[in-house]
This record gives sequence, C-alpha cells and structure tokens, in this order.
Amino acid sequence: MLNFNYNIPTRVFFGEGKIEVLGKQIKKYGSRVLLTYGGGSIKKIGLYDKVISILKENNIPYFELSGIEPNPRVESVIEGVKICRENNIDFILAVGGGSTIDCSKVIGAAYYYDGNPWDLVIGKSKVENVLPIGTILTLSATGSEMDAGAVITNLETNQKYGIGHSGMFPKFSILDPTYTYTVSKYQTASGVADIISHTLEEYFSNVKGAYLQDRLAEGILKTCIKYGRIAIDEPTNYEARANLMWASSLAINGLIGYGKDSAWTVHPLEHELSAYYDITHGVGLAILTPHWMEHVLDQDNLWKFVEYGVNVWDIDRNLDDMEIAKKSIEKTSEFFKSLGIPMTLKEVGIGEEKLEIMAKALMEYAEGSVGNFKPLAYEDVLSIYKKSL
Amino acid sequence: MLNFNYNIPTRVFFGEGKIEVLGKQIKKYGSRVLLTYGGGSIKKIGLYDKVISILKENNIPYFELSGIEPNPRVESVIEGVKICRENNIDFILAVGGGSTIDCSKVIGAAYYYDGNPWDLVIGKSKVENVLPIGTILTLSATGSEMDAGAVITNLETNQKYGIGHSGMFPKFSILDPTYTYTVSKYQTASGVADIISHTLEEYFSNVKGAYLQDRLAEGILKTCIKYGRIAIDEPTNYEARANLMWASSLAINGLIGYGKDSAWTVHPLEHELSAYYDITHGVGLAILTPHWMEHVLDQDNLWKFVEYGVNVWDIDRNLDDMEIAKKSIEKTSEFFKSLGIPMTLKEVGIGEEKLEIMAKALMEYAEGSVGNFKPLAYEDVLSIYKKSL
Repeated sequence: MLNFNYNIPTRVFFGEGKIEVLGKQIKKYGSRVLLTYGGGSIKKIGLYDKVISILKENNIPYFELSGIEPNPRVESVIEGVKICRENNIDFILAVGGGSTIDCSKVIGAAYYYDGNPWDLVIGKSKVENVLPIGTILTLSATGSEMDAGAVITNLETNQKYGIGHSGMFPKFSILDPTYTYTVSKYQTASGVADIISHTLEEYFSNVKGAYLQDRLAEGILKTCIKYGRIAIDEPTNYEARANLMWASSLAINGLIGYGKDSAWTVHPLEHELSAYYDITHGVGLAILTPHWMEHVLDQDNLWKFVEYGVNVWDIDRNLDDMEIAKKSIEKTSEFFKSLGIPMTLKEVGIGEEKLEIMAKALMEYAEGSVGNFKPLAYEDVLSIYKKSL
Repeated sequence: MLNFNYNIPTRVFFGEGKIEVLGKQIKKYGSRVLLTYGGGSIKKIGLYDKVISILKENNIPYFELSGIEPNPRVESVIEGVKICRENNIDFILAVGGGSTIDCSKVIGAAYYYDGNPWDLVIGKSKVENVLPIGTILTLSATGSEMDAGAVITNLETNQKYGIGHSGMFPKFSILDPTYTYTVSKYQTASGVADIISHTLEEYFSNVKGAYLQDRLAEGILKTCIKYGRIAIDEPTNYEARANLMWASSLAINGLIGYGKDSAWTVHPLEHELSAYYDITHGVGLAILTPHWMEHVLDQDNLWKFVEYGVNVWDIDRNLDDMEIAKKSIEKTSEFFKSLGIPMTLKEVGIGEEKLEIMAKALMEYAEGSVGNFKPLAYEDVLSIYKKSL
C-alpha cells in the first residue's frame, strides 16, 4: 500500500426528503446564491420550484445560470463568472448531474482568476481559490458531488480536460434517490457505466498491497451489477436508485484510490470522443472498456484480471487463469450490452475519419503515454479506437 | 437503505514517515499542547523522542499526561483536565492506541465542563464543546483515530460507557503502520478481534437495502481474515500492518453503518466484563461473539448469516441455509482461536460469581433491552455469559 493523505470534507445528506437541510446549509457558507442547472428536467420533477421556495423562505437572494450542457462548455463557465461578479455572489448551488456540478466548480475557481477560465482547465494558470459550492444531485454517475474534480469541454478547440483543486469539494451535497426516478433508461445505463469505469480505473493498478481498497472497489462494482438493470426496469425502485447513488459518490471520492497510484486510461481515451463528437460520456466509456481490457491483458497483469473475474463476476476460480481473464472481459461487455448501451462507436455516429486525429490529440495532451496499468502509446490508442468501431 | 448524514472530517496522513506533517498540522489548530500517552511503549520504539523533537523544533510548548490505562479511567480524565486548565492548553496530541485517544477526547470535552467529567460519560450532562485533538496511532483496533466516540471506565462504580460528540473527531490522525511492528502477538490478535467486532455490529442488521454498505463491510472482514495471522507471524510485514491499520479506521468511522440502524450488542456485553474484570477488550469480544451468534440465530435472520457465510467465509452456497449459518459461526470461532485468543471466560479469569451482577448492570444501563438485530433481555445476556465460561 502506498502512502496517502485522506481528506473527504464534503458533508452528504442522503435520502428521501433531505432537501429539508438546504436553507440552513447554504447559510453556513454564503448569503447570495448562483443557482445553476441544465435543461428543464429539474423543473419537470418539481425540484426547481422546491429549491426556489426554500431560497425565498430563507430570504436568500439568488441568480440563475441555466442550460448547462451535458459536456459542459467553457462558454457556460464564462457566463457564470460574469453573473457572479455582477451580483456579488458568494455561494454556488448546483442542481443537476455531474455536468452542472463540474461547470459550477470551475465557475467558482474562475471567479478568482482574471484571465480566460480555459487557462485554468489546461493548466496554464493555477487555481488559487474557489467559491463555496453545494449540490443537489439528480443523476448517479460522475461522483462530482463528493470529489474535487471537474471536466470542461472546449468545442472550438476540440478539447475536453479535467481540473482539480481541494477547494472544489462541495461543502455539502444533498443526495435524494427519488430525484433520479425520472432519469431515462439510456442515461441510467450511461451513469452505471460511468460509475463502473471510475472504479475500474482505480482497481486496475499494479499496486498489489492495497488489498482493502480493492475489496471496497469490488463492493461498488457488485452494487452496479446488481442494481443497474433493476433501476432501468423499475425506475422508481428506491433501493436500486439509492445504492447506485451512493456508489457513484464512493467510486470517485478517493476511498478506493488511496494507497494506489492509478493513472486513468479509459477516461482520457473517451474524453477525445466527447470532445470531437459530443457523445454521452458513460456510453463512450462502456464501448471502450472491454477493448481496452483485451488490448492490455498480458502475463504480467493476468493476476489482476483473475481477481476481477473471480471476485466480481463469480467466475469459477478452478478454471485456467487466462480463461478467467477472458471470461471477465466478456462478462463486462455483456453486462453493458444488457443495460441497452450501444456497444460500437458506429452506433453513436463515430466513423473512422477522425480516429487518428483523436489519437494524436490524446498523445499530445498525455505527452506520449496514457495510463500506468499498462501505458498506452499512439498505436495502442488507435488500435483500441479501431476495435471499438 | 435508511437516510443518513455523512460527515467524516478527520484528515488522515497514512504511511511510513508521515510524522513529517506533525508540526504543521498542530499549528493549524493550536499553540500549547497536552501530550498524552499510555505506558512506555512509545518510548521504546523511539516515537516519544521523535514527537518531542518535532514539538521543540516548532517551538510548541507542551505538557504531558502519561500512564493512561488500557481501559482508560475517569481519574485520568480528571488529571488531564487539570493540566489543561493550569497551562492554557489549546490542543491535545494523543500518541498511542484507542485508550489514549479515548481518554484524550473526553479530556477535551471535560475541559469545557465545570462538574465531574463522569457526568458527561453517563449522560447526566451534555458535551458542549471539545478541545481540538490530533492523534498518532500505535495500535490497530478501536478506530478511535477516525471517529467521534470514546469509552471510559469507572472502576469504583464498575461502569464502562461510551460517549460521542462530533467535536471529538480528531482533526488529523497520523497512521504509520511501522509504529505497530512491536505490538505483541496478543495485542495484535485482540486488535483484529476488535475490528471484526465493530464490523459485525454494523453488518448484522435487519436493514436489507444497504447492499453497498454490506459489501464494504465484507471487504473489511476479509482484510482482517487475510492479514490477522500474517501480522502475528511476521510482525514487521508492512502490507499486513497497513491493511489492518486502515481497516481499523474504516470499520467504525461511519462508512459501513450509514443507511443502517444497528444498535450494538456484543460491545455492551463486553463492556461489563471489562468494567468488572479489566480484561482486554478485544479478547472479551472474541469470546462472546460466537456465543452471541448462536444465541440469536433464527429463521428470521438466517438470511444474514447465509450472506455472511458465503461472502465472507466462502462457504458453499449450495449447502442448506442453516448449515451455512452454523458453519459461519464455527469459522468465526476457529479464526479467533487461530489468532491465539483464549476463547473462554475462565481462561481470562472470569468465573460464574458475577455473571448475574453483570447481566443485571447491563440491563439497567440498557433499560431492559440490548441491541436491535435481535434484542436481548436479561435471560439472553446471562445465557450468553454462561455459554462463554
């Protein structure tokens, strides 16, 4: 197990009706609120009205930034910063999924930066300070509600990059599983794929001694496998929605990564797809994951695939190791397919045309090598893209 | 899954050499330190000298309270409060195991209370405020390094009770597994039993929908099973010591209990043993646990024992449910025995004489019923004590 510093300061209020804490929690951190959200879904489920009534009851002035995109764009960040500055905002309340929360985090950071917010995303300038943020989650997927990271897209330059700072941890997050009852089958499936991918990015590591962390990761994976299909078939199954929601937070808040050294692989590969084609993030991850696994599997890392196959997929441990590994990859692919996820790039509108361009762009960003479980070079990335077609 | 509020604010610095953060961390919270510790073990391993040199290098004035007992007594709390008041202490640094940390937490709380600190322990008065606390852990067992609770003993009245307050979360804890290299085989085994018991107290619950939490709990149990014996046989095995240390924190910091409603059972039963006989806490837990399991197992809760047997002990799921359950209890008992723990009360010097007195004292404290997985009445408690003889 490697050394680590544990720090997860976000307070989580979990369960049906927990919005009751909203007014009191906001007042702990701020007095003038920027309310951020995406499309109209929070209005459809009555959440918008509820939030507004709480803000009004508590005499908290608020301003709105709506229409934040599924892959949130730097233009929304710029607009949010403008509203904050013009109205002396001191707290951001993000109501939505990971995109709204990510965008809000970068607004909070860019508020304290005079230049173009994109500088912060690409690392040209450093985040110094961040406005306090609270969230009300409506989609179980990115885990942004309990971590210190954000991903922003620049469609002009076809770039989608991550940014992180300890100030970006939400001060609080309200996780009410009933807010995810109306999430579509497709988005539910995509969210499950996202949670699984976050977990696998940490799980597939060459560090052998973080035994406890790997068992926790397997617990999250099993939760996704058990409840993914149930949530799709029975959208108002509280138990399924609750377990997936809590899994989304624990998959990426640090818990399963502490003591390991995982450099993520599939996420950067997918970010190129989203940056060039604006596809649904979780779907891109689901398509790429089995091909990435097949590509990297070798004698050195076979042990990890065997652990994965036996502990997560209940594959008979008496089979040959390579057979277990290959079966575990098949099971992964079959599971995503069973959720109704289109499992080829072609089905989501991506052809051969830009595969080389995307692979090159990724190599430039990654400075020649992606991930560290088995580092990928240009040819590896291109090969995975091609197999995913 | 039940509603819950997640709040684990303790920062953990984990790994060999992490004491390097000590000076900086103390200065974030205080300027005059009460250094607390137990017997001489921290001097033997050189940790005392290291701490003192860091305090001196950082020009931090410090005062000492040493000799804190394995089952920390209210007299030590009283003495600690006196030192704090006389010397304007504003930060407590606990160096040791759970006893030292628990005692320090209650000193921190009693500092702000004018009456007898025992009032706070028995709930006669409420904790209002707590001095900030930091810890350096030297024993993997109680998890006090990352939770908001403490247990204090009053040998005059033969009482050992728990007390909790959110202010009791340590601000930071330094977890360096090498500090546990010299822990004796007996104390190592006792610590493992303590971690397992904390986990089982949360795991054995009638709440069925907290699936994710139960998988996490199983991960902690598997970690104890894998590394318990290794740590005893190879005291300087870093991987074993590290996994047990992190397991001790995660078993009780809330993670596996959120969303459940477990009212602990075996701990209160053991507290009576410690209060009357001052035995090693973890040993008492190990002795009682299998007898408690046998006593409560019935058709209604059989499912939970089956889950435990199959997921934790790898018992063949094709066997008859009751057979799986009984085997899981046997496995639990055999495991404790394999760690070298004496598995009868007689072996630790407890005879029949006070069993009724202890059972009566417990019922009085528990107001007639202990635990909620299967609530225990007086006859149940006495029966478990007798079977444990």
